[in-house]
Amino acid sequence: MINVVFLGFGNVNSHLFKTLHKSKEVTVKQVFNRNYIKIISPFEKISFTDDISKLEQADVYIIGIPDDAISSFSESLSFQNELVVHTSGGVSMDALSNKNRRGIFYPIQTFSKERGLDFKNIPICIEAENSKDLELLLRVGKTISENVVEISSEKRAKLHLAAVFVNNFTNHLYQIGSEILKEEDLPFDLLKPLISETASKIETLSPEKAQTGPAKRNDIKTIEKHLHLLGDSSYRKFYELFTEELKQKYGKKL
Amino acid sequence: MINVVFLGFGNVNSHLFKTLHKSKEVTVKQVFNRNYIKIISPFEKISFTDDISKLEQADVYIIGIPDDAISSFSESLSFQNELVVHTSGGVSMDALSNKNRRGIFYPIQTFSKERGLDFKNIPICIEAENSKDLELLLRVGKTISENVVEISSEKRAKLHLAAVFVNNFTNHLYQIGSEILKEEDLPFDLLKPLISETASKIETLSPEKAQTGPAKRNDIKTIEKHLHLLGDSSYRKFYELFTEELKQKYGKKL
Repeated sequence: MINVVFLGFGNVNSHLFKTLHKSKEVTVKQVFNRNYIKIISPFEKISFTDDISKLEQADVYIIGIPDDAISSFSESLSFQNELVVHTSGGVSMDALSNKNRRGIFYPIQTFSKERGLDFKNIPICIEAENSKDLELLLRVGKTISENVVEISSEKRAKLHLAAVFVNNFTNHLYQIGSEILKEEDLPFDLLKPLISETASKIETLSPEKAQTGPAKRNDIKTIEKHLHLLGDSSYRKFYELFTEELKQKYGKKL
Repeated sequence: MINVVFLGFGNVNSHLFKTLHKSKEVTVKQVFNRNYIKIISPFEKISFTDDISKLEQADVYIIGIPDDAISSFSESLSFQNELVVHTSGGVSMDALSNKNRRGIFYPIQTFSKERGLDFKNIPICIEAENSKDLELLLRVGKTISENVVEISSEKRAKLHLAAVFVNNFTNHLYQIGSEILKEEDLPFDLLKPLISETASKIETLSPEKAQTGPAKRNDIKTIEKHLHLLGDSSYRKFYELFTEELKQKYGKKL
């Protein structure tokens, strides 16, 4: 049995908690959070503390707190030579205090309080300073996901950057779409099947093969019409940048 | 029974054809295409012509050809006063020749030859010059989709613009993500569950509520790290534009 203590209880750790709690190979011994949090039933029997000096013994401590706070928080832990990992995509393993054995347990996913998630298909990136710890993180990861991969902090930084493009920025395009419709009193629902299919397409086609639209075709008439519709809206900059890049990339001459 | 003739057999019309062909209320009388096309079995018995002067009588003619060609093609039809519609999001109804009764039958979706599609959830935008034709297009639409809506050419132009943002531009962000990973020899598969969840999230959350990431949080350390990783890559422009907009929109001060 692997004993786990959660340090912090934001979106990532609360989702990890709910999933690992169900695993037969893992025991969640304790949840620490600076502020009192109500642990949702049926998990009420889990030991909770808001006192950092009262952490229980565990095989692995999982930090899930804001990126900027990871370093100093890990320094503030009173114990030494334990396995302490964080769950952030963008923070190097070195950011953790070296008084403990360091590691990474980063699930590549977007977490919201409001949505349940099945970890089975979520890739989990692990990293550790020694092979025994790596082995343990692999075991923990495999109890919830079918895709646990060892990835260095360097590569993980790039992976996190790519994730920002396909998640954060994509979501902002959804936002722009919804606002353009709102101006016309059209419901955002009209775009949802298109959004869903756009995402599903790249399960079987490369993004390059899946690309369509006026910019790729260099359909000047439609592009001009769109620029006219956009006027001096703040979305125009996005339209121009994407259109220019797509025209260059696919380079279809009229 | 509603008789339909397809004019052109690109991605949209071939998908519409396959779906309408199954409908009990619709008979596909003929498919016209400038070049010979092989109609996939089990549809071999459909009458095909590449001779524009040999079009059969029908209740509605559905044009599915490149946007720029719609106008002159509709002018070249030899008959008059029939119902002729096109399937393009970005082209006004007025682009059709007024020698026939004009209309629109625009499914809001991205179509690829390689992927089958269920039309049930695909919104179909219809428009016509008179209520009888509108009624007929509504009947045709309802045989395949649960979401048929009357939308004016003006509003449809904006809808099409929004579709370009959430489909074409989003797909290009997927492309950028895949290229960043390729540079690190990491498989694009690592991002697929994230892409899928990003799209699924907005089924239940508004894009505004679903937004996460360093730009929204104004997490300067991570943003600077990302800009450093990007160097003078062509993706930098995208990163800067999205980050600036998100910072302004969500305006969280440090």
